[in-house]
Amino acid sequence: MSDVLSRRDLDFLLYEWLDVAGLTTRPRFAEHSRETFDAVLDLSADIARKHFAPHNKKADAHEPTMNSDGSVQLIPEVKAALDVYASAGLIAGQFDESIGGMQLPATVSRAAMAFFQAANAGTSSYPFLTMANANLIATYGTPDQVRDYVRPMLDGRWFGTMCLSEPQAGSSLADITTKAVPQDDGSFRITGTKMWISGGDHELTENIVHLVLAKTPGGPPGVKGISLFIVPKFLPNGDGGAGERNDIVLTGLNHKMGNRGTTNTLLAFGDGTHSPAGQPGAVGFLVAEENRGLSYMFHMMNEARIGVGFLAIALGYVGYLKSVEYAKTRTQGRPLGAKDPAAPPVALIEHADVRRMLLAQKSYVEGALALGLYCSRLVDLQDSASDDAEAARSTLLLDVLTPIAKSWPSQWCLEANSLAIQVHGGYGYTRDYDVEQHYRDNRLNPIHEGTHGIQGLDLLGRKVVMQGGAGLALLGEQVSETVARADAAGGDAATFGAELQDRFARIVEVTAAVWGTGDAALALANSTAYLEAMGHIVIAWMWLEQLLAVGAKSGDFYDGKRSAAQYFYVYELPKVTVQLDLLARLDRTTLDMSPAWF
Amino acid sequence: MSDVLSRRDLDFLLYEWLDVAGLTTRPRFAEHSRETFDAVLDLSADIARKHFAPHNKKADAHEPTMNSDGSVQLIPEVKAALDVYASAGLIAGQFDESIGGMQLPATVSRAAMAFFQAANAGTSSYPFLTMANANLIATYGTPDQVRDYVRPMLDGRWFGTMCLSEPQAGSSLADITTKAVPQDDGSFRITGTKMWISGGDHELTENIVHLVLAKTPGGPPGVKGISLFIVPKFLPNGDGGAGERNDIVLTGLNHKMGNRGTTNTLLAFGDGTHSPAGQPGAVGFLVAEENRGLSYMFHMMNEARIGVGFLAIALGYVGYLKSVEYAKTRTQGRPLGAKDPAAPPVALIEHADVRRMLLAQKSYVEGALALGLYCSRLVDLQDSASDDAEAARSTLLLDVLTPIAKSWPSQWCLEANSLAIQVHGGYGYTRDYDVEQHYRDNRLNPIHEGTHGIQGLDLLGRKVVMQGGAGLALLGEQVSETVARADAAGGDAATFGAELQDRFARIVEVTAAVWGTGDAALALANSTAYLEAMGHIVIAWMWLEQLLAVGAKSGDFYDGKRSAAQYFYVYELPKVTVQLDLLARLDRTTLDMSPAWF
Repeated sequence: MSDVLSRRDLDFLLYEWLDVAGLTTRPRFAEHSRETFDAVLDLSADIARKHFAPHNKKADAHEPTMNSDGSVQLIPEVKAALDVYASAGLIAGQFDESIGGMQLPATVSRAAMAFFQAANAGTSSYPFLTMANANLIATYGTPDQVRDYVRPMLDGRWFGTMCLSEPQAGSSLADITTKAVPQDDGSFRITGTKMWISGGDHELTENIVHLVLAKTPGGPPGVKGISLFIVPKFLPNGDGGAGERNDIVLTGLNHKMGNRGTTNTLLAFGDGTHSPAGQPGAVGFLVAEENRGLSYMFHMMNEARIGVGFLAIALGYVGYLKSVEYAKTRTQGRPLGAKDPAAPPVALIEHADVRRMLLAQKSYVEGALALGLYCSRLVDLQDSASDDAEAARSTLLLDVLTPIAKSWPSQWCLEANSLAIQVHGGYGYTRDYDVEQHYRDNRLNPIHEGTHGIQGLDLLGRKVVMQGGAGLALLGEQVSETVARADAAGGDAATFGAELQDRFARIVEVTAAVWGTGDAALALANSTAYLEAMGHIVIAWMWLEQLLAVGAKSGDFYDGKRSAAQYFYVYELPKVTVQLDLLARLDRTTLDMSPAWF
Repeated sequence: MSDVLSRRDLDFLLYEWLDVAGLTTRPRFAEHSRETFDAVLDLSADIARKHFAPHNKKADAHEPTMNSDGSVQLIPEVKAALDVYASAGLIAGQFDESIGGMQLPATVSRAAMAFFQAANAGTSSYPFLTMANANLIATYGTPDQVRDYVRPMLDGRWFGTMCLSEPQAGSSLADITTKAVPQDDGSFRITGTKMWISGGDHELTENIVHLVLAKTPGGPPGVKGISLFIVPKFLPNGDGGAGERNDIVLTGLNHKMGNRGTTNTLLAFGDGTHSPAGQPGAVGFLVAEENRGLSYMFHMMNEARIGVGFLAIALGYVGYLKSVEYAKTRTQGRPLGAKDPAAPPVALIEHADVRRMLLAQKSYVEGALALGLYCSRLVDLQDSASDDAEAARSTLLLDVLTPIAKSWPSQWCLEANSLAIQVHGGYGYTRDYDVEQHYRDNRLNPIHEGTHGIQGLDLLGRKVVMQGGAGLALLGEQVSETVARADAAGGDAATFGAELQDRFARIVEVTAAVWGTGDAALALANSTAYLEAMGHIVIAWMWLEQLLAVGAKSGDFYDGKRSAAQYFYVYELPKVTVQLDLLARLDRTTLDMSPAWF
């Protein structure tokens, strides 16, 4: 049976390309070595295979239900798997040693996570949301908040969520109406309804720590009046345990096309069902300063966006491996031009069009994984920088790449899953095989944590113009540095490098052209095309980086990398020309379309 | 609530563009008029809305199950809807009056069908498979076979299937192993297993007429040894009714991602469960000549392929209409650059990127519907031709367009459904809305009745080279004729016409170049890219035709057509350059990829 992820590929990306072992020369990671990294990866692969993969289909077929008492019913395998995960200390992996973590590089920690995401998207979401939540409180919370909330989450005794959306306010957080009223004791009482809350309720842990966006009285309108609160399902009992029930009620479960293993909830805060300390209203605790909640949440959101990218990558990757295995074992038809109709049929993989579908998947999932790990390494460089300038550079580059690291895998690793179904033929469309579920699961990723369209606005409207275009310039420097090495290497690398450099120069030109109009609506009319073009250019860069890391090495693995790089440059990168032409022309088709004409 | 299909658009395509009313000047359709056509469309829309749409979600949530006695359990609404459909005489609509039909043009009949496909893909499949089956027997069967099988199917008392695939032989029909042994009375006994048989068993009708591909003893190997048999679930009792049970058993139901309302079955023929006339073995009756079964089946298959195209179009169309309605009513966010955060939010459709997603859908579904109806009109021209030369031209053009009419909607109207989900945001991913089901239902279409890859091989390997390239030349003539009118019309039409002509000239050049190598494997290495490029060129042609039919007419509807045509020429048609460049380069990436490198 095929594995959920390729350890060989991870080893190549982490050690032969990104030199993750080299991070251990930095003080922050000095306690580590390649051996400890390998141990984490081995352990993760083992737990993912043994405890996460086996119930993936079952969790899909038996989605969470609400009991009559309002509690959530999940299949028991979910808790069993998460208990193993938490016991292995994996939730704390990336956190500082000072608060009980292992201080692992994000690069290693994300790679380890990807095994769980590939094995079981639904079950893996609970701890990953918890980590993002804990990371936010660890960054902005008080020492008491860290003690009261982060510690139990790192132990895996409590899980965490992020509560942003409301039924009437999804992409537009300015319109949230959840209120937070200050109390004499410094706490707040929260009332409102939150929608789409993943992991919003369950019986997996003794408590759930919600991070909730709400508005305090008299604040400015829009996003500038949003504050962030810790609102636990049960109030801490002062002894590290869960105490009195807070006034938070599960009012509905969303029934989704995929990703069914993760409860997705509608939560009522402060509707009076419970009365903590004798009064209705959900008790919440402000995180850091009032009215700055959205900027704190974006800290978590950016991490979550990279995490969504990894989820998409992991689902694409596991589908790719399964379709390769199927194509190698299932026989069907004969080679073109075969003369003897009585000759035995050949394996699917012998057909060029099947290899095209596999190569496309390979170029998408391995290209996306390279980008995900590259971004994670930027997190590590930022966290372990020896000076502020180095940290600032890493942060800036990460800022520019985040919308791409979220959106590109969400689009193309979903397409990979579609191709995985296609390789399986009719069988792939049935629930007897796994790939249809991966496809359904993956369709979520272009929607949550900022839709595809929002990522385009973020990239073209914010990231490439901020600091006078410094982010785009820095990305350009990095690309040029790779191209220079490719040029020196010669051969395909030099050819591809020249193509990449041309495309990058063109997108810089186009960026200036659209903003040269001084008309934001016109500049951003085709921001999605911009996002997708930049995405392909960045993934082409990632393939050139991989090709350089392959160098002259021989063997099937390296030949596969060479072919996938070639596939991306021949079949994929040329697509950006169409998008860049559209942008350069400042096309007004969508702007001029009247709603009445639909 | 939005409708399942746009009657306004159908009226435009049928009457303002294709002049379907003009068909009534031909003897075959002389009994008809626009009034009878409208009556069929009105009736179909009405039945589809009232009897098909309401149980679409329920049929998806409660897929068919097998009872302990081996029979199939469906929700009762399916039979109720189909009884209304059959009572209205719609199954017989397109058939000759001589056998009880209404002799409707295929163009009208397909348009009418599309209402049912859009309202409920699963329920609509039963009568459409029945029509294809009946049409085949009506064409190739004996008068007795027509009386015994076609008549009960046109009445809706019996339904029909097509049994081609087997568990080991899907795309490769050469490898079927089902056997047909001749008996002394001229009948055959059939033994074998058929897989993926839609409508293969149910209790909707008193009998099911299977058309089965099987091999007779001593025939040549491969596809040349395949014969076609009528194998009814119950043998005719000689009185128009169902008699003795034949030896056919349902051995399994396939559980699919979508399209769940249609039973999809594994059937055992002649496994000895039943003993018709005292002997095990399924009794079958040869259709026309032995060993020519595949060519007869392809008559039905080509019809089925256009039907799959229509299913994809209908699903794309209904999703488009629902997302337009959602975008007009759901409010979210503010226009770019809005200064006042306290201003009320605007409708989704006010955002340019949302209009992009709607325009893309519009250009896909209306472009595809135009092609589907154009192909149906070719069927009518063929069936009502005044001379053989006219019939042959229509047949030839239809042959070339069939792989496109099947594959293009299967790819792009699925993409339309993905965009419909995206417009809905998180809600679109839930089963509370309809669009996620349309997306799952539509994912079947690139797989069945010849996969996407098979369509590419059919187009580039057969259709454009047959008869010395006469089909491609004829298509070219038609395109040039449209371009000449566009040139005379001036304005956008002339501009788009010139672009279309350039692209068509290029694909003709590329066709010659790939076949100029004399190496079939190399020529066909990128046949999927060829299929997709030709598909975009053909749909661009359909948009130019529509633009010419719009002419100078004014009003929202016509402005919408103009914008969608512009969208297709600006955003979509340029994509073919990438595919044509790849083909022209005779790229070997997929050919040279070794299976060991994956």
